[in-house]
Amino acid sequence: MKRRICVVVTARPSYSRIKSALLAIKKHPDLELQLVVAASALLERYGSVVDVMREDGLEPDAQVYMVVEGENLVTSAKSTGIGIVELATIFDNLKPDAVLSIADRYETIATAITGSYMNIPVIHVQGGEVTGSIDEKVRHAVTKLSNVHLVSNKGAYDRVVKMGEVEGSVYITGCPSIDLAKDVMNGMTYEDFDDLKRGVGAHIDFNSDYIMVMQHPVTNEWQEAQMQMTETLKAIEKCEYPAYWFWPNVDAGSDAGSKAIRTFREQGRCKNIRFLKNLPPEAFLYVLKKSMCLVGNSSVGIRESSYLGIPVVNIGSRQAGRERSANVIDVDYDENYILEAIKTQVTNGHYASSDIYGDGSAGERVADVLSKVEFNIDKKITY
Amino acid sequence: MKRRICVVVTARPSYSRIKSALLAIKKHPDLELQLVVAASALLERYGSVVDVMREDGLEPDAQVYMVVEGENLVTSAKSTGIGIVELATIFDNLKPDAVLSIADRYETIATAITGSYMNIPVIHVQGGEVTGSIDEKVRHAVTKLSNVHLVSNKGAYDRVVKMGEVEGSVYITGCPSIDLAKDVMNGMTYEDFDDLKRGVGAHIDFNSDYIMVMQHPVTNEWQEAQMQMTETLKAIEKCEYPAYWFWPNVDAGSDAGSKAIRTFREQGRCKNIRFLKNLPPEAFLYVLKKSMCLVGNSSVGIRESSYLGIPVVNIGSRQAGRERSANVIDVDYDENYILEAIKTQVTNGHYASSDIYGDGSAGERVADVLSKVEFNIDKKITY
Amino acid sequence: MKRRICVVVTARPSYSRIKSALLAIKKHPDLELQLVVAASALLERYGSVVDVMREDGLEPDAQVYMVVEGENLVTSAKSTGIGIVELATIFDNLKPDAVLSIADRYETIATAITGSYMNIPVIHVQGGEVTGSIDEKVRHAVTKLSNVHLVSNKGAYDRVVKMGEVEGSVYITGCPSIDLAKDVMNGMTYEDFDDLKRGVGAHIDFNSDYIMVMQHPVTNEWQEAQMQMTETLKAIEKCEYPAYWFWPNVDAGSDAGSKAIRTFREQGRCKNIRFLKNLPPEAFLYVLKKSMCLVGNSSVGIRESSYLGIPVVNIGSRQAGRERSANVIDVDYDENYILEAIKTQVTNGHYASSDIYGDGSAGERVADVLSKVEFNIDKKITY
Amino acid sequence: MKRRICVVVTARPSYSRIKSALLAIKKHPDLELQLVVAASALLERYGSVVDVMREDGLEPDAQVYMVVEGENLVTSAKSTGIGIVELATIFDNLKPDAVLSIADRYETIATAITGSYMNIPVIHVQGGEVTGSIDEKVRHAVTKLSNVHLVSNKGAYDRVVKMGEVEGSVYITGCPSIDLAKDVMNGMTYEDFDDLKRGVGAHIDFNSDYIMVMQHPVTNEWQEAQMQMTETLKAIEKCEYPAYWFWPNVDAGSDAGSKAIRTFREQGRCKNIRFLKNLPPEAFLYVLKKSMCLVGNSSVGIRESSYLGIPVVNIGSRQAGRERSANVIDVDYDENYILEAIKTQVTNGHYASSDIYGDGSAGERVADVLSKVEFNIDKKITY
Repeated sequence: MKRRICVVVTARPSYSRIKSALLAIKKHPDLELQLVVAASALLERYGSVVDVMREDGLEPDAQVYMVVEGENLVTSAKSTGIGIVELATIFDNLKPDAVLSIADRYETIATAITGSYMNIPVIHVQGGEVTGSIDEKVRHAVTKLSNVHLVSNKGAYDRVVKMGEVEGSVYITGCPSIDLAKDVMNGMTYEDFDDLKRGVGAHIDFNSDYIMVMQHPVTNEWQEAQMQMTETLKAIEKCEYPAYWFWPNVDAGSDAGSKAIRTFREQGRCKNIRFLKNLPPEAFLYVLKKSMCLVGNSSVGIRESSYLGIPVVNIGSRQAGRERSANVIDVDYDENYILEAIKTQVTNGHYASSDIYGDGSAGERVADVLSKVEFNIDKKITY
Repeated sequence: MKRRICVVVTARPSYSRIKSALLAIKKHPDLELQLVVAASALLERYGSVVDVMREDGLEPDAQVYMVVEGENLVTSAKSTGIGIVELATIFDNLKPDAVLSIADRYETIATAITGSYMNIPVIHVQGGEVTGSIDEKVRHAVTKLSNVHLVSNKGAYDRVVKMGEVEGSVYITGCPSIDLAKDVMNGMTYEDFDDLKRGVGAHIDFNSDYIMVMQHPVTNEWQEAQMQMTETLKAIEKCEYPAYWFWPNVDAGSDAGSKAIRTFREQGRCKNIRFLKNLPPEAFLYVLKKSMCLVGNSSVGIRESSYLGIPVVNIGSRQAGRERSANVIDVDYDENYILEAIKTQVTNGHYASSDIYGDGSAGERVADVLSKVEFNIDKKITY
Repeated sequence: MKRRICVVVTARPSYSRIKSALLAIKKHPDLELQLVVAASALLERYGSVVDVMREDGLEPDAQVYMVVEGENLVTSAKSTGIGIVELATIFDNLKPDAVLSIADRYETIATAITGSYMNIPVIHVQGGEVTGSIDEKVRHAVTKLSNVHLVSNKGAYDRVVKMGEVEGSVYITGCPSIDLAKDVMNGMTYEDFDDLKRGVGAHIDFNSDYIMVMQHPVTNEWQEAQMQMTETLKAIEKCEYPAYWFWPNVDAGSDAGSKAIRTFREQGRCKNIRFLKNLPPEAFLYVLKKSMCLVGNSSVGIRESSYLGIPVVNIGSRQAGRERSANVIDVDYDENYILEAIKTQVTNGHYASSDIYGDGSAGERVADVLSKVEFNIDKKITY
Repeated sequence: MKRRICVVVTARPSYSRIKSALLAIKKHPDLELQLVVAASALLERYGSVVDVMREDGLEPDAQVYMVVEGENLVTSAKSTGIGIVELATIFDNLKPDAVLSIADRYETIATAITGSYMNIPVIHVQGGEVTGSIDEKVRHAVTKLSNVHLVSNKGAYDRVVKMGEVEGSVYITGCPSIDLAKDVMNGMTYEDFDDLKRGVGAHIDFNSDYIMVMQHPVTNEWQEAQMQMTETLKAIEKCEYPAYWFWPNVDAGSDAGSKAIRTFREQGRCKNIRFLKNLPPEAFLYVLKKSMCLVGNSSVGIRESSYLGIPVVNIGSRQAGRERSANVIDVDYDENYILEAIKTQVTNGHYASSDIYGDGSAGERVADVLSKVEFNIDKKITY
């Protein structure tokens, strides 16, 4: 009988980070994929990722609306609580042999808790990394709730072991997000430009030089989110390059972020910017591959961009602590610093590819480990 | 303005472990206690701990029913999810400056998650210890969600620091449960014997020699819970000492445990056993202090009993890994081993008092730390 | 394509009232049964009705734990709220063409609300009847939320129409519970006496004369539940007939009811009573058919007993207002009145069969209506 | 001791409909107001009604985030379920003597269910009216769950009684929304024009002639919501009058409605329209009083506008069945019909004031009834 691996996808970036593993699990002769699509991955406001998944041949076994509206700290907690209540019923009905929790978004702890409490082995992908903000708490707490750890690199491996996890339970698979980047590096193109037209704002010639922006609110400082966004908006306006700007995730503070953007637009500014909700993962990477520079605080700048060699201007504390390659310049929330860094990066051009987050075969390694590892729900700290 | 410290008490044993700290916080001139009573602490089936608290002068600011019935693994998860949903609303309305999460029961992670996600500093009492079963996952995950750690001893301190917590955030206060034990050691007596009469079964002369039993289901092995309980029932029956047996906690498996007891009773056995729901914390310790031996798998055997010098027969894996004093004999789930160990312990008599879980001043130390520590919600692993 | 009819079964008595319809829906060539088993129907404490259903060939498509423990008025509301949250996800995933809500238990409004809000036609079985207590509010509210009404008799029909429902949406099918009674009348026997042995208390010779008791707490008077139960216990004790007593439902107050029974038993009383958790529906009716008299406040006394001609002593207000046949004597909560009525009924012996709650073909009529009715979610009061 | 009346306000329009009653309850010597603000009344996206309430001197005793994001039919149900779970805890802690449920929005049934199940008398304001869509189901179901009915007019009174409610439990108080209209009729002005400037779109001279638009999605037809909105947008564009357009409520379909507006704006159309989120209730009525005509499907057109004599173009089925005065012209979703009706109404000018929804003293009557009525939780249908 096949091992049933239940994966809960809750957001657009989580899908990018797990897609190649989902496809590999689905294809593996000894595994059965049970797919639950939940939270902002179902919401039109965040680009209806579930539709992208269906187009990729990934039909959900269950879908769960669980985001409580408010986009503040209270509702982050509530959404997570509802997630646990509902995932418990879903796991009880689907009866998976293991559940997989992705990375460190706040609501993903629902998968780890529900699995743990139901004596289902918990697999964690992308543990052991270091960042600022609430993600840091969530990531390491999920490590302590998990039975198998599939990490991106040796630094993450060492950290997970140091936290008291048994060595034999930690595997360096690389990050599945790099698998998609590899396909793009290997010449995969993307032709359906309708998505690029769907946004609002400037009309950009996709074949010209352009930059990209992805900036998320930093939860622990959410009241400053509007100011932070505004500094970047001003820098992008001044640099004058055509820019594709991707709307922020569902997170406490994203309303504040969105507000800064809307205010700017009402003032008739942002004339060089096109705002997009989202693209399918590969399309996004293809557009990124062709860009001059990525600006913001997305982990894409640290992770996929290191492999693709894209120059990155990383703003603020959100990625603080995460291992990085030579492609990143860190700056504070300050219009002038941001502008200067953009110019430096554009002048520098693309960097050499780095494999610090994987070599592009993570998905298959994940499926391979899941087909062979001995599942065990008992665990004890090693010291 | 006083610092508002919100404590969520969810069960009978949690109350024993935090009572002296609650009273010290309430009394402290710079602190305001916000008390939330929830889960099994409200249920008559588990002894209506909330009523005991009221008698101790601790009036709840809010109460929350959150236990989903079923006493299985699915409902443990669901209860926790509901806890998060409701605590979010309660914290949003009470606006505490910090929340305190007690030890490692499954539902206590709700306090740590809700506090963390709402950017409220999380205080954890009794982290850094080691046991088997789901408690182990919960305890260390709560450590990674917490900002201040108030631990029982140096071993716990070292473990919390090794997990990557900043040294300055960890304080050895001792366990508040020892404070109550100290009062009892210092001659506090308990006169209201109505509680002892309230149970069912044998009539025991409180002034004669007797033993005590407290055995909880071990969640990760819950289908075996009935067998485990039965081995102990048989051993107690054979030893022939009068025995006070305390009903198990609300936990996955407690129904199975209860069933074993009921089956035994229906067969007209257990003639030397009186079954009790619960006692107020000090009354319990007073009865413990006067007993010849404690049998079962309660942490009381490891913790309070080390201070009181009570001989303990500790059964199975539930307390595996927890630091212990000389008073404990560990045995497997086996009628004969249990019986033999009881005889050895009764023959040995009481042990010398140990302070490995504290010297009896933990409550005041907890309040003192909470009045002075600089709260900070940002944290990052130290390596 | 078959019409998907989703039925949510939440308790033991609801199953008896819908079983024949479930089997008829399952068998009907144009219908597909989607079965959700939830709430106390999953709990061992209430006899694990889900296991009985499986033995009847009814495998659930989903199961949902939703009873919040406390058995009080607060938790009745909470359980219902959780039911709505979870049924929404389940209906979203099962995509039924209609949902069926059974009778008037508090948690059944969850089915009606969730269906209504999701624009799924709501079928209500057993609307239009009259009783006391919270059931009365629930039943008529569900009528106003429903699109198709399948009622027991002309009185119910008239009431539903008077409340402003369109005549064409109301069908007199009879109550499906009578279908099972008809099978028993037609000679169906029940041989598996293990269930009768499983309870606790007196050993009763099933072939001798005996009476039966089923008494539920009356929610609006729940603090009096213990007194109410005690009066009946005393009357049954005095009448001296062997008695099968069935434990109360999960309801606010059932703990109080259970407590009265346990107190009585601890006093060594109830020597003529055997306490049973539950029986499969037909087994129950078979035992009822053979009994001299049914005592308590169950709707079985009004409903199935009218068809079977069983003498009934109906206590208190719970069935007030429900249409009844000649077989019922109504008495107040009073030991002496109850005792006297029992004697009168036993002396009288069985009554003639009445069809005021149906002629025994309701299940097939229900399936027939569901296969043909034009579903329509828009409705407007007729005046 | 004062009677504690707990009112749950869940949305902007509900506040307008209850404000005068809230103030009258607060002022009444025998009543204590317990105010719970929940759902979209807390959300910035819907104008943070809670802030308006605070400015009116109404400080919430508790606030509850409960809107599950998705704005579809699944999440309407879920939001309601969460509301019940949380209101149960809140009522358990606030211990009101009665709870008041406002009108017929989907989530308001949570107040009625929770109150009913907790044996708290339920007061319903604005029952007995007739409309289309899901509101119709909700309104009458709430009537059947309620113990006291405070209705707008004789038609509503008759309907509630016909549904089987006891005559003595129904009071014609008028609708409290008319009280605010009366203040405006009596010369109350509104000077803080900042709110009018806060929207987006055309700059309108408030002292010139203008029209107003308020159009909500019709839930049972939500996939058509975008088309419906577009017809109105085209008619308003063609009529060329300056127009204040108020964004729709949080409801399944409001995203579709919003999308139609955004699409129109992106095309550079709507040059005569200013889009506003919301105004404080009296400000809104002041602006309405000065307008030439109200277009859309808001109940404000039927209710407050009848008192103010404002010409109304009522579109589609949403208000079908509601009693109306001479000021309303009903049209279908059709650009041309809407345009023609606007012209007719502007030409006609204001109508005479009507009191079919009250004479402007409803708030005080509500408080008066609540201070005197004998609360009783038992009820039984009258036939």
